[in-house]
Amino acid sequence: MQRTLASSLPAHVGQTVTVAGWVHRHRRLKSVEFLIVRDRTGLTQVVLSPSTVEPLPAESVVTVTGRVAANPAAPSGVELTEPTVRLREPAEPLPFELHRPTLAATLPTQLDQAHLALRHPARQAVFRAGAAAVCGFRSTLDGLGFVEVQTPKIVGSATESGANVFPVDYFGQPAYLAQSPQFYKQALVGVFERVYEVGPVFRAEPHDTARHLAQYTSLDVELGFIEDHRDVMAVLRQALAGMLAAVAERHPSLVDTKVPEEIPVVHFVDALAMAEKALGGDDGEALDLAPAHERWLGEWALREHGSDFLFVEGYPAAKRPFYTHPSPRRPGFTNGFDLLFRGVELVTGGQRLHRYDDYLAALAARGESPEPYRSYLDVFRHGMPPHGGFAIGLERFLARLTGAANVREVTLFPRDLNRLTP
Amino acid sequence: MQRTLASSLPAHVGQTVTVAGWVHRHRRLKSVEFLIVRDRTGLTQVVLSPSTVEPLPAESVVTVTGRVAANPAAPSGVELTEPTVRLREPAEPLPFELHRPTLAATLPTQLDQAHLALRHPARQAVFRAGAAAVCGFRSTLDGLGFVEVQTPKIVGSATESGANVFPVDYFGQPAYLAQSPQFYKQALVGVFERVYEVGPVFRAEPHDTARHLAQYTSLDVELGFIEDHRDVMAVLRQALAGMLAAVAERHPSLVDTKVPEEIPVVHFVDALAMAEKALGGDDGEALDLAPAHERWLGEWALREHGSDFLFVEGYPAAKRPFYTHPSPRRPGFTNGFDLLFRGVELVTGGQRLHRYDDYLAALAARGESPEPYRSYLDVFRHGMPPHGGFAIGLERFLARLTGAANVREVTLFPRDLNRLTP
Repeated sequence: MQRTLASSLPAHVGQTVTVAGWVHRHRRLKSVEFLIVRDRTGLTQVVLSPSTVEPLPAESVVTVTGRVAANPAAPSGVELTEPTVRLREPAEPLPFELHRPTLAATLPTQLDQAHLALRHPARQAVFRAGAAAVCGFRSTLDGLGFVEVQTPKIVGSATESGANVFPVDYFGQPAYLAQSPQFYKQALVGVFERVYEVGPVFRAEPHDTARHLAQYTSLDVELGFIEDHRDVMAVLRQALAGMLAAVAERHPSLVDTKVPEEIPVVHFVDALAMAEKALGGDDGEALDLAPAHERWLGEWALREHGSDFLFVEGYPAAKRPFYTHPSPRRPGFTNGFDLLFRGVELVTGGQRLHRYDDYLAALAARGESPEPYRSYLDVFRHGMPPHGGFAIGLERFLARLTGAANVREVTLFPRDLNRLTP
Repeated sequence: MQRTLASSLPAHVGQTVTVAGWVHRHRRLKSVEFLIVRDRTGLTQVVLSPSTVEPLPAESVVTVTGRVAANPAAPSGVELTEPTVRLREPAEPLPFELHRPTLAATLPTQLDQAHLALRHPARQAVFRAGAAAVCGFRSTLDGLGFVEVQTPKIVGSATESGANVFPVDYFGQPAYLAQSPQFYKQALVGVFERVYEVGPVFRAEPHDTARHLAQYTSLDVELGFIEDHRDVMAVLRQALAGMLAAVAERHPSLVDTKVPEEIPVVHFVDALAMAEKALGGDDGEALDLAPAHERWLGEWALREHGSDFLFVEGYPAAKRPFYTHPSPRRPGFTNGFDLLFRGVELVTGGQRLHRYDDYLAALAARGESPEPYRSYLDVFRHGMPPHGGFAIGLERFLARLTGAANVREVTLFPRDLNRLTP
């Protein structure tokens, strides 16, 4: 069987072809009957003489051989006429309908039946956009001399924060799932200067929220020989622009924003002051921005700078990880930054410490022993350049881009506090 | 500081530039002194007046400002003269030398000090080649209409084989690290028709061999609407050709082979008979090929077909997973295949069952309950097309390509029975 895809039918008008796909809909009107067949490139309208075939169960696999006819009234401008329909793999009755513009099933039902719910064209489109975004991320970084790496997901100590890790039984030894490739990507700056990784990270989040997943896809970047965090922010801007451009190229309807040439930057102290002035409240000592502050800052950036993106730099040291490089100008603050996308934190990054002694001092200042960090700290004994990096949560990016209320809507098979299947 | 990379120095002859990198070697000869600086693009030779600076510890981070001079005797045709050297980040003494053509340290020592050993140019090159290979894999499949996906690495039941899984404590519930994305990629054929994933897989291998890792990178592919496994093999051929072409483009010295237009194919029964005839032994009932058989077949393919690659198809059902599609022509055999690369199994793949009832029968025939497979089996109730796929082990591919004796040599931070750090 020579198969013709839906998207290439317009090039075959007048010819007899065979399409293969799923029964998206079998629609019986008074004088005419339509079969809509879905394949990976789109929908094909097949015109049937009334009652030529038994009603076909939705989502069954079929092949249809017929003549391609131009019809401006058909969704893609062509349709198949004089068809021979062959039912290849009949489907059982569905728990919800897939041919309507939006899926009516509740999110838990969709997630329980993910193999079906994901077939809905609108849901599919999100993941195709995600694949395009990751492709744009990689090609941008490849062009900037970065090397893609793969690092261990099973680690010997719960180093990043000590909390919210999943324990693994590693040949009888205690181990943990990696919360991030942070330490590995830093070590690899000493090797390749510029590295990135696209891979799963694991957080044993005890909160059941619309924003948290137990496993998500992290787009991790780290680069050496920087002056400070501003060099990192410049690479982040390019990576995001590459991601959005790649999505826009393949799915223009999903992208209604762009990354400005210069993303506006505000210092944490100024961001907090502005938001507090606008929203009321006066906690000049706050160490982090509240979600309400971030939302207001997102609106401010759009209003004042026409930008959906806003950098907040210089976060207080108390709320950043111990490896964050302090600000050389403002004691108590760091060269750490967040990127807000439409008023929600999308990316966290910063310059890191790069000297062995600074690490020892930073751990001592937090009352932490250097012992669990031994193999990490060794990295800084042998000539590490000033460096920094960032991590983009792919699902969070997709949720903001598509306006999904829950990050689970943009995850193929989410894992959370209550969900371990499918 | 405007930094110039080693690779672009030839375009700056006569100009004063600044390079930054690591002290690859500080070499004092009788009348002249060389400093070799390594950055991500290569080595720069700096000519020092004898004793202008203190001996610089190897792997220290330096910046050097100097005049670019053409010198055909210099490794890259240029060198820096009249330099000002600035020691930025001094390195402690190294456990082994990195400037010699090969690393003299034992493999365990290299792995213990991976952050240093990986800096060796020859070791770096392998991973740059690996990144190129994965890039070639993806771009080939993107061009064939595949969608890249990310699937869960924590699963509720140890479905693939039941053995060799790592247990995870999932919020107090028993769970396991995924041994492969097999079930997810099959489910996603029902959504996208063609999917691939590049991600970690986990095997609690109780054997400490040169071929096995507890975590490796699997390049997984699955596609629907196939006639049989030969369609899968055709995609595999293209993917491999894309991988080798991408490596050859960036690292020509690493690639001394090519993928033929038609990779030779032998049936398992014929492969076994030929190998047994040549090597002696007559176990006509064997269910798998021994490593010696595979080696001989690799030599045979090279001798008879001029190919480093050989497909063996039609493996006996007893040695393939339950989801393997039986051969419609030879009872007891399957539409499963292996690809041998230079006499070693590199890829396993095949056509899968696609009908719900066939799955129930296959599990019953093995005396297995369908219960642990419930959410997997549900996928086949709703119209699944004939499909198949394969998985390439990235590290195994790199090991065969570079002739590495141990797969750990081509893994950044390997995990095995005895190794959980760094």
